Amino acid sequence: MCGVFGAFSTAGNPVLEEVYLGLYALQHRGQESAGVAWIDKSDQIRTIKGQGLVHLALNQAELATIDASSAIGHVRYSTAGGSGLANVQPLAANYCRGPVAIAHNGNISNASGVRRYLENRGAIFQSTTDTEVILHLMAHQPHKTELDALVDSLRKLKGAFSLAVALKDRLVAARDPWGFRPLALGKRDDVYYISSESCALDLVGADMIRELEPGEILVIDDEGVRSLRIPVEPRRKYLCSFEFVYFARPDSLISGRSVYEVRKNLGKMLAKGAPCNGDCVTCMPDSGTVAAMGYAEESGIPYEKAIVRNRYSGRTFIEPTQRVRELGVRKKLNPIRELIRGKSLTVVDDSIVRGTTSRRMVELLREYGASEVHMRISSPPVKFPCYYGIDTPTREELAAARANETALCAEIGATSLGYLTGDDLIQAIGLPEWEVCTACFSGNYMEDGERHEELDI
Amino acid sequence: MCGVFGAFSTAGNPVLEEVYLGLYALQHRGQESAGVAWIDKSDQIRTIKGQGLVHLALNQAELATIDASSAIGHVRYSTAGGSGLANVQPLAANYCRGPVAIAHNGNISNASGVRRYLENRGAIFQSTTDTEVILHLMAHQPHKTELDALVDSLRKLKGAFSLAVALKDRLVAARDPWGFRPLALGKRDDVYYISSESCALDLVGADMIRELEPGEILVIDDEGVRSLRIPVEPRRKYLCSFEFVYFARPDSLISGRSVYEVRKNLGKMLAKGAPCNGDCVTCMPDSGTVAAMGYAEESGIPYEKAIVRNRYSGRTFIEPTQRVRELGVRKKLNPIRELIRGKSLTVVDDSIVRGTTSRRMVELLREYGASEVHMRISSPPVKFPCYYGIDTPTREELAAARANETALCAEIGATSLGYLTGDDLIQAIGLPEWEVCTACFSGNYMEDGERHEELDI
Amino acid sequence: MCGVFGAFSTAGNPVLEEVYLGLYALQHRGQESAGVAWIDKSDQIRTIKGQGLVHLALNQAELATIDASSAIGHVRYSTAGGSGLANVQPLAANYCRGPVAIAHNGNISNASGVRRYLENRGAIFQSTTDTEVILHLMAHQPHKTELDALVDSLRKLKGAFSLAVALKDRLVAARDPWGFRPLALGKRDDVYYISSESCALDLVGADMIRELEPGEILVIDDEGVRSLRIPVEPRRKYLCSFEFVYFARPDSLISGRSVYEVRKNLGKMLAKGAPCNGDCVTCMPDSGTVAAMGYAEESGIPYEKAIVRNRYSGRTFIEPTQRVRELGVRKKLNPIRELIRGKSLTVVDDSIVRGTTSRRMVELLREYGASEVHMRISSPPVKFPCYYGIDTPTREELAAARANETALCAEIGATSLGYLTGDDLIQAIGLPEWEVCTACFSGNYMEDGERHEELDI
Amino acid sequence: MCGVFGAFSTAGNPVLEEVYLGLYALQHRGQESAGVAWIDKSDQIRTIKGQGLVHLALNQAELATIDASSAIGHVRYSTAGGSGLANVQPLAANYCRGPVAIAHNGNISNASGVRRYLENRGAIFQSTTDTEVILHLMAHQPHKTELDALVDSLRKLKGAFSLAVALKDRLVAARDPWGFRPLALGKRDDVYYISSESCALDLVGADMIRELEPGEILVIDDEGVRSLRIPVEPRRKYLCSFEFVYFARPDSLISGRSVYEVRKNLGKMLAKGAPCNGDCVTCMPDSGTVAAMGYAEESGIPYEKAIVRNRYSGRTFIEPTQRVRELGVRKKLNPIRELIRGKSLTVVDDSIVRGTTSRRMVELLREYGASEVHMRISSPPVKFPCYYGIDTPTREELAAARANETALCAEIGATSLGYLTGDDLIQAIGLPEWEVCTACFSGNYMEDGERHEELDI
Repeated sequence: MCGVFGAFSTAGNPVLEEVYLGLYALQHRGQESAGVAWIDKSDQIRTIKGQGLVHLALNQAELATIDASSAIGHVRYSTAGGSGLANVQPLAANYCRGPVAIAHNGNISNASGVRRYLENRGAIFQSTTDTEVILHLMAHQPHKTELDALVDSLRKLKGAFSLAVALKDRLVAARDPWGFRPLALGKRDDVYYISSESCALDLVGADMIRELEPGEILVIDDEGVRSLRIPVEPRRKYLCSFEFVYFARPDSLISGRSVYEVRKNLGKMLAKGAPCNGDCVTCMPDSGTVAAMGYAEESGIPYEKAIVRNRYSGRTFIEPTQRVRELGVRKKLNPIRELIRGKSLTVVDDSIVRGTTSRRMVELLREYGASEVHMRISSPPVKFPCYYGIDTPTREELAAARANETALCAEIGATSLGYLTGDDLIQAIGLPEWEVCTACFSGNYMEDGERHEELDI
Repeated sequence: MCGVFGAFSTAGNPVLEEVYLGLYALQHRGQESAGVAWIDKSDQIRTIKGQGLVHLALNQAELATIDASSAIGHVRYSTAGGSGLANVQPLAANYCRGPVAIAHNGNISNASGVRRYLENRGAIFQSTTDTEVILHLMAHQPHKTELDALVDSLRKLKGAFSLAVALKDRLVAARDPWGFRPLALGKRDDVYYISSESCALDLVGADMIRELEPGEILVIDDEGVRSLRIPVEPRRKYLCSFEFVYFARPDSLISGRSVYEVRKNLGKMLAKGAPCNGDCVTCMPDSGTVAAMGYAEESGIPYEKAIVRNRYSGRTFIEPTQRVRELGVRKKLNPIRELIRGKSLTVVDDSIVRGTTSRRMVELLREYGASEVHMRISSPPVKFPCYYGIDTPTREELAAARANETALCAEIGATSLGYLTGDDLIQAIGLPEWEVCTACFSGNYMEDGERHEELDI
Repeated sequence: MCGVFGAFSTAGNPVLEEVYLGLYALQHRGQESAGVAWIDKSDQIRTIKGQGLVHLALNQAELATIDASSAIGHVRYSTAGGSGLANVQPLAANYCRGPVAIAHNGNISNASGVRRYLENRGAIFQSTTDTEVILHLMAHQPHKTELDALVDSLRKLKGAFSLAVALKDRLVAARDPWGFRPLALGKRDDVYYISSESCALDLVGADMIRELEPGEILVIDDEGVRSLRIPVEPRRKYLCSFEFVYFARPDSLISGRSVYEVRKNLGKMLAKGAPCNGDCVTCMPDSGTVAAMGYAEESGIPYEKAIVRNRYSGRTFIEPTQRVRELGVRKKLNPIRELIRGKSLTVVDDSIVRGTTSRRMVELLREYGASEVHMRISSPPVKFPCYYGIDTPTREELAAARANETALCAEIGATSLGYLTGDDLIQAIGLPEWEVCTACFSGNYMEDGERHEELDI
Repeated sequence: MCGVFGAFSTAGNPVLEEVYLGLYALQHRGQESAGVAWIDKSDQIRTIKGQGLVHLALNQAELATIDASSAIGHVRYSTAGGSGLANVQPLAANYCRGPVAIAHNGNISNASGVRRYLENRGAIFQSTTDTEVILHLMAHQPHKTELDALVDSLRKLKGAFSLAVALKDRLVAARDPWGFRPLALGKRDDVYYISSESCALDLVGADMIRELEPGEILVIDDEGVRSLRIPVEPRRKYLCSFEFVYFARPDSLISGRSVYEVRKNLGKMLAKGAPCNGDCVTCMPDSGTVAAMGYAEESGIPYEKAIVRNRYSGRTFIEPTQRVRELGVRKKLNPIRELIRGKSLTVVDDSIVRGTTSRRMVELLREYGASEVHMRISSPPVKFPCYYGIDTPTREELAAARANETALCAEIGATSLGYLTGDDLIQAIGLPEWEVCTACFSGNYMEDGERHEELDI
């Protein structure tokens, strides 16, 4: 998971502070590092990057003083590539046609093959990210304009990519032909914005014009916006269902669907499919909140915030190591004894990945005197790793891959455990089945037949 | 507002990491700086202090390596004294009887008189905090033991103080005779803890033994806990009602009352006293959440999280300057259009201080298409500044002091505005009126007759 | 050893950059830390301090922007007190009469007694330096003006102190009644300067007006300079002879004597008293350079720079730990093989303290093929520790205290070893014997009879 | 100017601390930045780089803990390329054949053409240094082994390069066919060293085996040392004469000649060719010291250190900007009044570049009362810029290019001005004329006929 944001002022106004604010709104998509890039008046690429949360990695006041009317930004939650500073995006390069900077959300699945191909033709890679292959694919087409080289480079890639690209005098946005990750276009006065999620457009006061089509390339320059297409025709689409379940912010729209409403639907359908009697419905804060409210509404059982989250820490799933993750859970959850002691609780969470968080929470509720703890999960069991941009663990580490529901219920110590079905997931999202990726639940990955390795640069 | 925490292991085990975790749980009481202090094996005071949030100001891993079986800590939200590093607590000093370190929550109202008295007798102050007078009062009684000097020093003070004090081989906790600020004693195995709020005892896995009485001094050493009294007999008590309304965490107990339940009661009584028809009840996240849930439950109107809070920023009220505060509001609230457009909303918040936040929120909801915005406040109008530890603005800046309800409703742009009454506040808290301070609502400050300025050291 | 510098503009011009440059010129007197202090327009003391060399500890560009027409500075080479940042000078305090900042060169020999006295009267010390007693002595005389309190405080001290003191609207310079350490007054246009050595006056383009008399206090304000006296009448003076031998820069004047010329005389007298035949005279760079040139001139033996010093390291004697000191020697000396192989060398150095440096240098010259190495020392054997501001080791560590000349010659591996006599030292300096301190050579410390411990504040 | 150093232990012992010490000894060749590189056990290149002096840019203690038996290092004094951190050497890259790191002293004169050629074939450059072309030339020959690719890449270069290159399991040293810059091979026990100057071999306790021949490549691996040649046959050699005049340390040997002795000869021949009567000979410290001693010895006029250099600053010529350079001069020179007032001084310096330093020094001596100042320069007038690695200014800024000797003497304010002749320079160095580059004095650059631009990779 990562987030990208870009801004282009057709009136030449400075946009870097708005890129900062956009990244701030996308913070939930990546807490490991953040960076911005722009091309200055003398055609030099400038980047500012840092480790950690946006407000630590970047200095808002400093950015506010920089005169750049086109800029891109990135928040990173490491997927491909290690976590060194060389891998912090945006990646940037000067090649013979000029400066390029790229911010990328997703995971290019044929990156290692492309990299090998390019290295055998003289390319020297600076980073270990999959994103860098795009820069070298462009550089190896010196006879084409930057834009033609970019379009042709994207044609050669397979997997997930939502991109913001800064070229001289232009901002380019692109979304892979399969539509794995969201990407939206917004506008306020003279400024066009591109953003991984619509919530960041709200923050900067922009209206969302529309979401990019899968396979669409938008070129923004002083003349306005132009739409091109990546010349690849996939058999179906693969919009990530986990964006609705967990990643995206509830105040975002994806494929025209309100994430808040989808999440509430998930809770309601869960209440129908996996009902439960109890004294109250509560949730893993904050990931299960909206689904829990849906569950309560559908079931008629009262909703209580029985577990308070320390607001000064980040999300569990997003922390890098197991040890810190466990400490993280301990530091961030505080149950309210009066609401728990002697009660039968229905606890709604969005998913069980490794199982650690759930086990720890059940333990905590038992320590505080809960008589029963019914776990209800607002998505199907996660049994398969994701290869398209979500940093899931290996199959062996996935709780639902190594244990069936009964065993897993025992493992986490719950009184009962209930999941949403795959069909209910699709129905709650409200999109056709052939447009949604459910690979992490179903194992149905993008077909190999669609792979194309020949790289005729 | 500030938070204090202390730990003492009678078995000589290291406690600094637990003090860190305790401060982490008290983070909501102060985000400006944090510090810890202990007395090392060679009787030297050691302090580690830093600016900003606990995890930035202090290094948990470093603290975990330090061998100190008694330590205190502090999170600071500047009240008296400026914000320089010299004013970051705990304050520490070596005087002729040995080392002393103090962490203080509250505001000593006769500090400037005491300081003048001491300076005229040769004292050199290092900081501009009111807390430092305690150190010098002790040093000017060199003929007494440290503990006697401390007790006698506290006798000379007026106003609010909940203290954690590290002496050689001892940890001392003290609460002012009026009981302005909370302070609790906990225990787990061989370790005694003192904490501004019980939620921090939960975090470190300790049981709360009891809260300190107003005027009580606890001395913790290898023999266990001993209770002394500050020899001052006030006419009544002044437990801060704003702790229930806003400051304390919902999972804390204060004077035996669950803050969560008090807050839910506030919402219910508000629904009775200031009813309202609307499509849904929502709240200013997160300060109004529990009261809003109470309002919804009492009124039968559904509760929706129509405004999402960016979880990576702190609380509005706690930021230092007006400009950053406005930016802060802008960056942290994202309304969900689908829940707002064309709806009549009842918005519950805990209080209106300057009015800026409310006005901005109403504006935001109107921008998103709300047809009506009914503001409901779960406490009486704040009309008077606090002199006992809460950093309220001057009277002129208090919205409810400069405008009546009708004018204020217009100023913030709401359709209607309703407050809780003072009587309902007392009833919701459930304590006798003569034990609760409501000075910020009523102007009933601690009586001057109780003041005693003569300092016979 | 330390260095102090102060500047006062009677026309209100900013002087901090000049204080920086003055400290830069005094860098040889202390490399451990540096600091400046001034009193701002609102009567607050401001200090900037840092560890290491002046250009690392302080930021010249930043100082140049500060509007302060009176300021003091200090370079520190730790003597009394540890090396923490709390001990970096200038020390500063606000007491009931206002702000005071002090920079001190020397060592107050009755400091611990005075400190005990003050602590028993309520004083809380912030640092472990001897200098801080001056601040508290002043604060304990609240009935006197700052200047009267300062003069009376100095009367109570014994030992070495050359001071620069910043008071509101005044700069005060003071030198102890025994005259241990130098202190000079300079002027350029509207600015008066005080400096440990005259070389720093040269750097800022000032003319030296005169050196302070032992026991003299100069008060500089907008009216000009006024001279007072510390009311103590010592039996004799104790100007440190080691300033001439090693510490002071050759381009300084002390008691009207050119350090360069004194050092050349030391070499000439050494050539007469401890003659030697050899192929060339060389020196320990750079401490023995001028004496070696004098030795060569007197003896007629050619002078060669046979050992090149790496110009990017500091002085041996001034590094803090033994291990770093040895590394330091290794890193900074590079012999020139062509000038050494098969030659008989006369090597002049200023002194032998621990013997480590000399032994290592003789070894190095032997490695490079020297046939004979004759060590000649331009001062008498250092047999006694200094209690007046020079950081000599304990008696046990002093090479000349634990071994006679024959044994020491063997220990350092030299072919022969010759010292200057005490009489020749006095003669080369050219001052009467009763004005010069030779305690480190002779053990003749300041008499106890002159001690006065009663502190009638 | 830059310095390179490398170490390879055939017994697998760690060498990074020795590389640090080697760079320390080469500090005079570059003060802008420093860096080290090695290839770790998993074939990853590791680099540590920093701005400023070696001891600030690198952490000796940290390097001492790293287990690397082959490593290279670089001190940089910016020539080609800007001063950003991306340009700090060693430069490193992973290409399809594996890891490479390069440290380079000199200036590749056909670098921009080669760069253009490579960029048109897809290369993306990370830095603006000329050195990076070597990496890309290698990467564009993926069919060759690393060593073959390196040798063939060097064949395509023109200009000055003395290189240390780290490959997997190998350390390679190379010197350009014209021999512009020195490079020496040393050994101690199991470790081979390569170093820009022999003085750094002395520091690490190594013996110099020999200097590399122009056009020689040394390959050091576990088997020992192997010698190859760059297949280019130049008509003549171009060893930089300025190394003898100014850059190299006096304790180094270059082409078998002692720099100290050459410099003393320069002074003696100057005394014959440009004699002068005066009270004493003195010098610009420290650049003119040895030549001044030679002048004094030959002329019989006594030598005095009339100007003391503040040992805590660097060299004039090596500072980056004019403004700091002037401040630098002001801060670092302190004349001794007693040796100057009323005297006729002969001042020896190594060269006059911009003239600023000389003018300022003459002014200073006049301020201190010198009656006559005779400038004597131990090299011919510098009239032409250097294109081979020395950062001279443009022709317009060169004092001797814009003014004849009479005018220049007036410009700097000297009583008289005398230079060494070109013939005397060659004679003092003691090498045949056709082996020495005197382009900065004579304008005789490397012939264009030798240029070969065709890049048949």
